[in-house]
Amino acid sequence: MSEIITAGILVIGDEILSGRTKDKNIGFIAEYLTNIGIDLKEVRVVADDEGAIVEALNALRERYTYVFTTGGIGPTHDDITADSVAKAFGVGIDHHPDVVARFRQRFSEAELNEARLRMTRVPDGAELIDSATILAPGFKIGNVIVMAGVPSIMQAMMDIIAPKLKTGARMLSESVRADAREGDIGTPLRAIQDAHPETSIGSYPFYDEEGRPNTNVVVRARDQDRLSAAIADVQAMLDKLKAPKP
Amino acid sequence: MSEIITAGILVIGDEILSGRTKDKNIGFIAEYLTNIGIDLKEVRVVADDEGAIVEALNALRERYTYVFTTGGIGPTHDDITADSVAKAFGVGIDHHPDVVARFRQRFSEAELNEARLRMTRVPDGAELIDSATILAPGFKIGNVIVMAGVPSIMQAMMDIIAPKLKTGARMLSESVRADAREGDIGTPLRAIQDAHPETSIGSYPFYDEEGRPNTNVVVRARDQDRLSAAIADVQAMLDKLKAPKP
Repeated sequence: MSEIITAGILVIGDEILSGRTKDKNIGFIAEYLTNIGIDLKEVRVVADDEGAIVEALNALRERYTYVFTTGGIGPTHDDITADSVAKAFGVGIDHHPDVVARFRQRFSEAELNEARLRMTRVPDGAELIDSATILAPGFKIGNVIVMAGVPSIMQAMMDIIAPKLKTGARMLSESVRADAREGDIGTPLRAIQDAHPETSIGSYPFYDEEGRPNTNVVVRARDQDRLSAAIADVQAMLDKLKAPKP
Repeated sequence: MSEIITAGILVIGDEILSGRTKDKNIGFIAEYLTNIGIDLKEVRVVADDEGAIVEALNALRERYTYVFTTGGIGPTHDDITADSVAKAFGVGIDHHPDVVARFRQRFSEAELNEARLRMTRVPDGAELIDSATILAPGFKIGNVIVMAGVPSIMQAMMDIIAPKLKTGARMLSESVRADAREGDIGTPLRAIQDAHPETSIGSYPFYDEEGRPNTNVVVRARDQDRLSAAIADVQAMLDKLKAPKP
């Protein structure tokens, strides 16, 4: 059986905590990791505050195979992620010669100001995550992957780094629309969960097209046969529930 | 000067971590709290796992004035928030007589099964957050506010509990569209931040309508005069940047 690979996400940014910007990265990374066989276990969102970033990063990187950060790698004074990551790892940070060289090609001497040069700073020992279309690179240091906060750039970075990561058996999932209220299926669903301990069964209420309470049942497992067996039991339970009473 | 009131959010749910459901509650609560004068400091998302919930809840409730949780208060086996909160506080949990009475009015004896009765369980000493239109109540225990995961229900619960919370001086904010690249304003913006230490200045890059890099500068402060003074300096800096070079 293959190893279980786990991950945490650390979203860095005052703008998310103030509600001014609505995060779009957590959902994207969560789905991406599920699809490649990495289990997301925890997400934290912290402010642009060195102490908060260092503490959260150290907690997450100790617990999980990988930690993905988003935000705070731009050119302004509130972009303190690279420095905070260096501090968390206890390493130095300096202008990376390859990135400086690319910046010199892209910008005039006047444009290559202190703020822009700030974006070329990378912790010692980090591996760059970049491409011709990414200006300020992300980087990977130890088990920590540091990415941009702008969704399109973050997504490009995920595509670059993902093939280099260890992945495990994919968590498979199948969903059944119950056409029943959650309260009507809760008791038998628990029995099905107990009978299928190698699966994880979730129950998600929603209001259907006509505003009536409905439920999606989602079964997750790493093994297709186990998944199918649990789904069959869920389906049989729902059929029985809907059968006309004698 | 009024007290600073802080908060954390704990989102509970495997479905968020798998990426199957995209969270809509963090952004809503973040904006809500900012508007009523509570500073959101941290968000965590954890799985439907008692150990993970208890640990995160205890960390957050010790640090912040309030903790808001969403998710896991339904009738199914994966809804373990109420039990986990009771465990975190070291108190018992039982069927709440007022909630059971309401359920008896709403449901027939056959419908009032074990799963549904599960939703009437509330930790000892908790205060209910409910109304005529909310079936399963949220509750407040100590500084922890436990709410539903379904956005419309969570939002109704926020409206009920918010007037009962301590609030502080609102964080005011004003935004300026720079019409400049972040790298061009980073250096002078840092000087403005240094000159206005009682404000918090954020810089948020985006691509404008024509796909060009642009920047929003956001100044935040609790005092309107300080906010206006910093905004004036930002505006003057931008005007100077755009003035034709001699």
